[in-house]
Amino acid sequence: MQKETEDGLRNEVAECCRIAEYLGLFDFSGHVSARIKGTDTFLINARDSVRSSIGSNDIVKVDLNGKSLEDTKTPPSEVYIHSEIYKSRADVYSVAHLHSHAIIELSIADKPYLPVNNRGSYFADGIPVYDHCHNIKTEERGVELAKVLDRHRAVIIRGHGSVVVGENVKAVLFGAYFSELNAKYQIGAYRMGTQPHALTEDEKMEYSRFWGQRIYEKVWNYYFDKATTKS
Amino acid sequence: MQKETEDGLRNEVAECCRIAEYLGLFDFSGHVSARIKGTDTFLINARDSVRSSIGSNDIVKVDLNGKSLEDTKTPPSEVYIHSEIYKSRADVYSVAHLHSHAIIELSIADKPYLPVNNRGSYFADGIPVYDHCHNIKTEERGVELAKVLDRHRAVIIRGHGSVVVGENVKAVLFGAYFSELNAKYQIGAYRMGTQPHALTEDEKMEYSRFWGQRIYEKVWNYYFDKATTKS
Amino acid sequence: MQKETEDGLRNEVAECCRIAEYLGLFDFSGHVSARIKGTDTFLINARDSVRSSIGSNDIVKVDLNGKSLEDTKTPPSEVYIHSEIYKSRADVYSVAHLHSHAIIELSIADKPYLPVNNRGSYFADGIPVYDHCHNIKTEERGVELAKVLDRHRAVIIRGHGSVVVGENVKAVLFGAYFSELNAKYQIGAYRMGTQPHALTEDEKMEYSRFWGQRIYEKVWNYYFDKATTKS
Amino acid sequence: MQKETEDGLRNEVAECCRIAEYLGLFDFSGHVSARIKGTDTFLINARDSVRSSIGSNDIVKVDLNGKSLEDTKTPPSEVYIHSEIYKSRADVYSVAHLHSHAIIELSIADKPYLPVNNRGSYFADGIPVYDHCHNIKTEERGVELAKVLDRHRAVIIRGHGSVVVGENVKAVLFGAYFSELNAKYQIGAYRMGTQPHALTEDEKMEYSRFWGQRIYEKVWNYYFDKATTKS
Repeated sequence: MQKETEDGLRNEVAECCRIAEYLGLFDFSGHVSARIKGTDTFLINARDSVRSSIGSNDIVKVDLNGKSLEDTKTPPSEVYIHSEIYKSRADVYSVAHLHSHAIIELSIADKPYLPVNNRGSYFADGIPVYDHCHNIKTEERGVELAKVLDRHRAVIIRGHGSVVVGENVKAVLFGAYFSELNAKYQIGAYRMGTQPHALTEDEKMEYSRFWGQRIYEKVWNYYFDKATTKS
Repeated sequence: MQKETEDGLRNEVAECCRIAEYLGLFDFSGHVSARIKGTDTFLINARDSVRSSIGSNDIVKVDLNGKSLEDTKTPPSEVYIHSEIYKSRADVYSVAHLHSHAIIELSIADKPYLPVNNRGSYFADGIPVYDHCHNIKTEERGVELAKVLDRHRAVIIRGHGSVVVGENVKAVLFGAYFSELNAKYQIGAYRMGTQPHALTEDEKMEYSRFWGQRIYEKVWNYYFDKATTKS
Repeated sequence: MQKETEDGLRNEVAECCRIAEYLGLFDFSGHVSARIKGTDTFLINARDSVRSSIGSNDIVKVDLNGKSLEDTKTPPSEVYIHSEIYKSRADVYSVAHLHSHAIIELSIADKPYLPVNNRGSYFADGIPVYDHCHNIKTEERGVELAKVLDRHRAVIIRGHGSVVVGENVKAVLFGAYFSELNAKYQIGAYRMGTQPHALTEDEKMEYSRFWGQRIYEKVWNYYFDKATTKS
Repeated sequence: MQKETEDGLRNEVAECCRIAEYLGLFDFSGHVSARIKGTDTFLINARDSVRSSIGSNDIVKVDLNGKSLEDTKTPPSEVYIHSEIYKSRADVYSVAHLHSHAIIELSIADKPYLPVNNRGSYFADGIPVYDHCHNIKTEERGVELAKVLDRHRAVIIRGHGSVVVGENVKAVLFGAYFSELNAKYQIGAYRMGTQPHALTEDEKMEYSRFWGQRIYEKVWNYYFDKATTKS
């Protein structure tokens, strides 16, 4: 039973990598992980997996110190992004590290994330910025990053990428894609020399009750179909 | 006879969804509807249809209160966009709700739609803005939106998307695509720090006599070919 | 012999349409023509040809009044662009009318064409603007447009598109693509809030001796390969 | 043995051309070369090779004067870019000449290259600009360009393209792609009317120890997979 669940999760992580790659949120690097419920371990795509064709066999199980629990596979050097967030956030069951362009561009222009599009309202309380262009290749940096993330749903690493967290893998894909989309819309307004029209508190409140598993599934199904049949 | 027409219309709505998806006017959500002539019912793609592969079976018949007339299918939660426009506009036989990027970007930058390209002249009298980033998930909001639309061919929902209406499905696809294209050109000028060169009254007048069923068909045929054979 | 040449030319015009469509210089409309040497006739893609799949059968022969010489095919309504240029420019053997985005955007922002990229130097003496967003659907407008074109290699129709002329079909494809590319680069600089660094007279002079049939063929072969095998 | 190595290198140069073309760093022209170790010769794609389908047979061996050592193949007219850099830089074993868009756009806007993204830190000491929009079609210009390159990893030819050098072909692909990516991010900030947030000296230093053969291979494998199976 446990084995069955774990295999399913392994597959789900691999699928999320493929969708993220299709959507341009990944390129040759980037990683998605999922915590195995009731354990101190999680699954993540291995360091040397070729991001354009990730399958279940590219997923490695690691412990909360970021150490591999499988003989032949190594986690990414930035595994501490994941392990330290799982340590500090009991509510988080999935984490993605992305190199999505609009989010990076926003941080290079020193513009804070601001919800302007209905989907961007998923991050109603904003997305904090870790103001270093570091690789998170040590436990210490993982701890720092988790502190900046705090109780938010995402954190931006200036000039480098973002980290999105959620209650499950599909929630994370949703957050990853819609933070990028909202960033594009913000940038659109800045490029026209204007401040973007931010969502009102009421608008953000309304949508915070709308997003949830039904929509996560809908978004997942649509992009999974495109990533696997259209590319 | 009536049955035959309805099946054809069901198919046309499904095809329009596929073209809209191909053109990026839709993504995982978005809907197209068509009123069944001589009745108080219309056809619309169902809430849970996967937008990348919509066929006739994904279309549901609903009444003007937005209630499904088919056992197994549910209309989108924003069905009131359609039902309230059909109630208030006897000249309208098709409605599309889109999440097209340039139109959304324009509204986030608080820039009004302005015809600058010959194709954009289709909306010679502009496109009003519904200045809320709402989901139109109640009859009341549908009524409000229809009031802002008034006698126009489209209305923009700020930060969220647009609604295009027309005398038939092909007219709506035409309007959907060319409102987006004109918005891109406007944005192009704003990004260069200039005001776009608006069409003169004479230019708008000339084209208002040019657009019509022959051109709607030509645009439809071209993008239908691309959507179905090139993707 | 004459028949053979004409069939070859018919094919070349069709291929040029396909490449232009692949490159985004065409969409559902747009036309390419070629004058049949030693005659007062030219070949052009017919009005109702679907632009995504043009073949030799979609090409129609017309006279210099823009009248069809084939029973079943009609030229585009803007055929006067072509006929009037052939009348006024004995050096021109091919004409294309395009809806390329950057050129249109430049004209909507009232920015003149300025060679900034080596390939853009093909239009060393600039590209004049016909300052009306008209359809060129009458002989009179064709005459006006040909006057604005004068001895240049291209003319821009504000808010609508461009017309590129040349000594043969391949020269026209070259000009069509590289005017668009240079316009993109100009726009790139304007978007950064700066004036683009224009080519010096020496730089323009150097390249004016470089462009010619060898390069036209190279560009044609590359994009023909892509248009026919990669799309 | 020597023959074997040379065949392998010939293949690697051809593969690099295909990846560069897939990534838009090349178009119908552009070239990659590799020095044959222990000799005064190098391999480069021939002048008339169609850039969308380059294979080993399209590669020609030339000497350090840029003269072909094979009967039937001619090097590009700008071969002097390569020959003069090999003469002046004993550490360089591969050179690419690219027409990548963001780098060209940056130079047309007179903006210097500035590392803002972690990958862009590969060029920690900047990228100098050769301030002429020339074709490097003579030995003399090759010498001038090599002087501007000096000890750097790349040089920009204003309004025309760039040249990237490295210790092997994979290092050059890495540099080619990430100089372009960093340029895009810089441009992104300028378009929003702000100065980009430059990497600190510490940030640049950290990454200078990170880039190397393991990452070059990873980037190569990913884009090779995409270029050969996804296009």
